[in-house]
Formats: sequence, C-alpha cells, structure tokens
Amino acid sequence: MSLLVQKYGGTSVGNPERIRNVARRVIETQRAGHGVVTVVSAMSGVTDGLIQLAHEVSPSPSEREMDVLLATGEQTTIALLAMAIDALGARAVSLTGAQAGIVTDGVHTRAKIANITPKQILHHLDDGAVVIVAGFQGQTMAGQVTTLGRGGSDLTAIAIAAAIGADLCQIFTDVDGVYTCDPRLVPNARRLDELSYEEMLEMASLGSKVMQSRSVEFAKKFGVKFEVRSSFNENPGTMIIDETPSMENVVIRGISVEKSQAKVTITGVPDRPGAAAQVFSALSAAHVVIDMIVQNVSVHGTTDISFTLNRADLPAAEATLRPVVDAVGAAALNSREGIAKLSVVGIGMRSHSGVAARLFECLGRGGINIQMISTSEIKIAVIIDEASVQAAAKLTHASFGLEHGPYTV
Amino acid sequence: MSLLVQKYGGTSVGNPERIRNVARRVIETQRAGHGVVTVVSAMSGVTDGLIQLAHEVSPSPSEREMDVLLATGEQTTIALLAMAIDALGARAVSLTGAQAGIVTDGVHTRAKIANITPKQILHHLDDGAVVIVAGFQGQTMAGQVTTLGRGGSDLTAIAIAAAIGADLCQIFTDVDGVYTCDPRLVPNARRLDELSYEEMLEMASLGSKVMQSRSVEFAKKFGVKFEVRSSFNENPGTMIIDETPSMENVVIRGISVEKSQAKVTITGVPDRPGAAAQVFSALSAAHVVIDMIVQNVSVHGTTDISFTLNRADLPAAEATLRPVVDAVGAAALNSREGIAKLSVVGIGMRSHSGVAARLFECLGRGGINIQMISTSEIKIAVIIDEASVQAAAKLTHASFGLEHGPYTV
Repeated sequence: MSLLVQKYGGTSVGNPERIRNVARRVIETQRAGHGVVTVVSAMSGVTDGLIQLAHEVSPSPSEREMDVLLATGEQTTIALLAMAIDALGARAVSLTGAQAGIVTDGVHTRAKIANITPKQILHHLDDGAVVIVAGFQGQTMAGQVTTLGRGGSDLTAIAIAAAIGADLCQIFTDVDGVYTCDPRLVPNARRLDELSYEEMLEMASLGSKVMQSRSVEFAKKFGVKFEVRSSFNENPGTMIIDETPSMENVVIRGISVEKSQAKVTITGVPDRPGAAAQVFSALSAAHVVIDMIVQNVSVHGTTDISFTLNRADLPAAEATLRPVVDAVGAAALNSREGIAKLSVVGIGMRSHSGVAARLFECLGRGGINIQMISTSEIKIAVIIDEASVQAAAKLTHASFGLEHGPYTV
Repeated sequence: MSLLVQKYGGTSVGNPERIRNVARRVIETQRAGHGVVTVVSAMSGVTDGLIQLAHEVSPSPSEREMDVLLATGEQTTIALLAMAIDALGARAVSLTGAQAGIVTDGVHTRAKIANITPKQILHHLDDGAVVIVAGFQGQTMAGQVTTLGRGGSDLTAIAIAAAIGADLCQIFTDVDGVYTCDPRLVPNARRLDELSYEEMLEMASLGSKVMQSRSVEFAKKFGVKFEVRSSFNENPGTMIIDETPSMENVVIRGISVEKSQAKVTITGVPDRPGAAAQVFSALSAAHVVIDMIVQNVSVHGTTDISFTLNRADLPAAEATLRPVVDAVGAAALNSREGIAKLSVVGIGMRSHSGVAARLFECLGRGGINIQMISTSEIKIAVIIDEASVQAAAKLTHASFGLEHGPYTV
C-alpha cells in the first residue's frame, strides 16, 4: 500500500457529473489499496463568477475580502466531492485549507505556504477515509483566510504530499501529460514518460501551461515525485522526478513555445553602472513581469537593452518607461508585438555542444529569422515572429527527431 | 454612541445593487455615531442552488458535508458586503462564524450555539471598523463547520448582540415590522410599535413568519431588545422588548393566521394511561412536527385525540399512525386538509375575561364554524376551514378594533 495525493483541477470537477467521475476514480484508487488525499480546485467558471460579483460591488475590492470570497469556491467543491464519494459507498471527509493545517503568510491573494500541520489529514487517513482538501487556500497564524494565487491548487497538492510523505502526487488535468511539443502545433509530438524537475521548470516557465513554476520548484525542493495525467482517460501520464544519471544522455527532451509575447528595446543607453537597474526597478515597481533580457556589448559608450514580456503588459511597460528613458539619457524606446518564444529544453544539453548550431541551422533553412537569443544551462530560447512559430516548431521537432521521443546521444 | 447589531436577510442582499444599498445603510448608521456589527444571510437563491447541487451528486448528502457546502453562501455575502462598504469609503472587516468566535455543538445542519467568544468582533469594533459576520454558521470546539438551521442568521444576530452587550439588535427584512394581522389578509392591519417577547413568541410560532421562535426565545433569555424593520425603506419597525407594566392593559395585540394545516383525529382510543404517549412517540420518531393537540373527556371508556400539523407532513403522519391505531386498539384514523389556524394574542388576556366569548361570537356571526379550540395564557387559537380564513381574520380584526392599534382596556 502506498500513500497518494491526487489533485483535480476546475475542468475535472466542472459539473456534478464530472464530480461523480472523480469520485469513482478516487474510490478505485483507494480500493486498489492506497491511502488517498484528494485536492480539488473550484468548479470551472465559479472563480470567475465570484470575481465578477466582487467587481459589481467595488471597483477595487480589498485583497483580504477577495480571499474570503474566492475561498468559497474550493470549499463548495470539497463538500460536493465528499458527498459524491459517500453516495458511491466509500467514506470521505472534506477539509478546508485551514482545517487541513495549511498555514500561510499574510500576503492576501498570493500567500506563500509557511508550514503544514497535517494532523487532521493523517487522523482521517488512519481512520480509513478518503481525505478531500480544498486547494488554493490556507489561513494565517492569526486565522485570516488566504489564497495562494495562480496555480495554488497544484501547490497545495505538492505541499501536502511533502508534509505527509506521500509516495506520489498525481496532478490530474485535461491533458495526457507533458509532450515533446504542444500537439496543436506539432501533431506528431509524443507524450514524455518522464522528465526531471529542472526540465519541467523550463517547460513550465516557458508556456507549456501544464503547471506553474512555483509548484515544480516546491516539488524539487522537497523531493516530491509527481505525475501529470488526464482525468478524462486512463492513460499513464508523465512522471516528474529527480534527475537520474541516465538522464544525462537526454540532450533535448522537448520544445516549449510561448506566443503573445512582445519585445521592448531601449536604444542608446549610456554605458554606466545603474542604467539597467533604473529601467528594471521602474518596471518592477509597476508590477510588469519581464521574461528574457538581452544586453549586448557597448559600442561608442552606449548600449541597447531589450527585453520580452507578455503582450498584455506592453502598454503598462511603455507608460512606465517613457519617463525613465529620458531620465537615464537613452536615445529611444521601441516596442514590437507579434513575436513568440521557442525553447529547446534538455538536461543533457549542458554536456553536449552542437545543439545551438543545429537549432539555428534548421531555423535558417526554413527562412525563419532569429530576433533574440537567450540560453540557460539546459535551455536555448529564441525569439521569432509569431506568424512563423508553428513552422519553426515543426522544423525543430523534426530536426531533433522528437517524434521518436527525446533526442539522446 | 450606542452599539448596534444589524441583521440583513437573503432578500436584502439578493444582488450586487442591494448589497450596495445595505452598505450605504450600514455606513449611515456608523456615521450617526454608532458601533455597528452586521450579520448577513446568503444571497437569496444561493442556498437553494447549493442544495440542488448536493442532490445532483448524492441522493442523501451527509449533514457534515452539507454544512461545509452551505456555509459558503454566507461567506460569499460577508466578503461582498465588506468590499461594498470599503468602496463607499468606510472600513469593514468580514468574519466567518468561526472567526467571529461562534462555537456550537456538533449537531450538523441544526447546531445550537454553545458560546460566543467575541474577541475578534470587539477588536475590530475598537479599531473603528464595521464588522460583518456570516450568519447561520459556527464551528465546533474541534473546528468542524456547522450551520444553525432555519432562522439561523437571526439567531446569530441576537446571540452576538447578547455577547457584546449591544444596545439594540435590528432585524432588517422585507416587511415593515409585526402587524396586528397579515396585511394581505386584512388591508387595514396596523404595524405594531412594540410587543413583548411572549407575544412575539406566540406570533412567531403561529405563522407570522417574520422570525423563528428560537431566536425570540434566545432574545428573551438574554434580554436582547430587538427591532424588526424593513431594509427597503426608512420606516421605523416594531420593537420587541421585555414586558412592561403598561402592557398589562393590552388585551389583544394582534391576530396570527397559519394556513396549509391539516387535522388528524384518532377516534375510539381506549381511555387508559399510555395510549396518547404511544401515538405521539411514534410521530416524534418519524420526525413529524405536531402543533395543537386536543383531547376531550372520555365517554364510554374511549376518547378521541385530535392534532394539527403542517399539511406537507400529513402523508408521513398517516403512514406512521396506521399501525399505531391498531396497536392501541383505537377505532379509526381520520384526517382532513384545507384547514387553518387563527389566533388572537395579547399579554393582557390573562387578566381579562371575555376575549374568548367575543372571538367565538364574531366568528359565529360570520357563519364560520370552529372545529377545534386551544388556549394558552396569552393566546386563543381556533381551527377553521382554510377557505374562510380571510373572512375570519377581517371579522376578528374589526371586532377588537385592531385597525386603531392594540385592543386595550
């Protein structure tokens, strides 16, 4: 017998019939001899409905009250799932985030988990019940309701798995797992059987949208083995685990694509200490989230700084930077929409050269212009025109033979 | 400055616009120099929607999970009202039942309040905030979510008023107060300025529907002065207070009417100890709620026992009693729908005779047959045909001159 944490997202519990399906699945898992803790999100649409209500009573709802409001979404789901499990003849107990012992800091709407005291969870597990925990929420030491922000339910599941020493955390979602590339772009993309936390982090932060980086980081930190799989079929999913020696052979695990990006370039920035800091402090103060930053060597005492960001944040970035450009004595501010980022990710990349050359060569062969390049130990990312992103993904996927699985040496 | 508890029911907070109206009202009260604690119900329709969801996942949802589910309704309202108050420039803090320190026993879906520790409420009041508390809910000592059952939000308000020593508890509802009779039946019925707890109890338990008896009993026990008034206008309401010496002069305060009743008669019950107990124990075990019971003197060693109940409970009562009739050796079981109860209520009745005579005389004059009679110290109730209930109410109202206010001597 092993101890499993299963997490079901909003789509998986989106209506009473789907809740009954999840109940069946949870019961099957328990009857196969496992202890089961199930973490659930709000039913899809519920959170958006609550946010709309909030904006109908206030133009800028307080974050404390927003948390009190949104926490009702998951509380509704835990009760309904527990009832559905009871109705199918097994025994379930629901716990809110507070009841499950999830203690957070006091930063409303994006709280961090400070610690988990899983006394209630363990008590009900010992008692033979399926334990249903509300994802996305916790409470402060002082008893304030908090929510964990985007991807919060995944984080709840991973953190509980760590706290109770679960053998596996299963993240049930509407996709079969993590693929070598988005199958909507590259139809012959393959589901990956496994990947390392580091690779998953690059995939997650690069728009593969399966999970938020913070949950993956948490899993990595506490060594929580987790699986991403579908709640709508019985297919095995993708296991995300610690790096193993054999993984070193995997040069490219997959390709991640992020559309709807924008690029901002500040030209003629005086090449002196503090200029870049002024630019990015201003953006940070305006809560503009930046992705890639590229600065090349200085020519004639000035340099150009470029960065990418989500297209939706572009107006805020431009408004923030116009006065800064003058303040630092730069020449001009240029921006461009309609770009996308394509990244190749693989743990073995750090010990194998030639990946960059092969990537650039295949894109060049396809007539696709590379506008920016950025690399990490296990990733090479390029910025290209959004219009050519599917062609680029197909070319790269084929060039590394990913239709047969990871590119190994 | 005084300390007020205001309670707003589901209709009063039924949509965002009404929530904003309540926010304005609460702020006006605070700006007039009062400390304000506001207790709210779930928005109208929300609780029914949740109950329907529950029945879509389970034919018989567990009461524990029902409480977890239903408690989200009031939690939603407290957050929205706090946001609306903030948006209008005042400061509000929402508290769930648990946060407000409302500790109950563990009887899910109909918990009793065990005690209230109003530390958080007092802290935020001291801090100058309007405190918004979720009605209808609490938690057990062990941290389980509970709900208080029907009329629970009124009870929350009265209990908090008692716990914090409020000067007044205002129950805002969709009617202007308590009337001498239901104005839909008797158009010239008058709103009462005040009545005693005892009178309100008789009115409440007799279908005036403004409040549940348990809240009135709680208020009486702890001496909480409360006012029933409308949330849709600025009219003063009805004050419910301790009996005063001058109230002794009030023979009839008002008339209460309860429709949709049914009557069951068991004829030929052997006149021996325990026969009645067998009948009513069986009904109690089947959770059938009984109203009036009448048994007349024995003739030829047998007697007839009659009782009234809500028409909806009649099928359950009949099914329960059929075997009991045989077991006690009674002759027959008869039942009748289409009856109603009319009661005249007044504190001075106990020291003044002639009320019964006047009531029976005016009904007789109207050709209205009295099927059963039951009296208490401050009430005379008669069972009549439902079809003649409006005529009876009008006749009685006029006979006691209630269009000018209470009938005094």
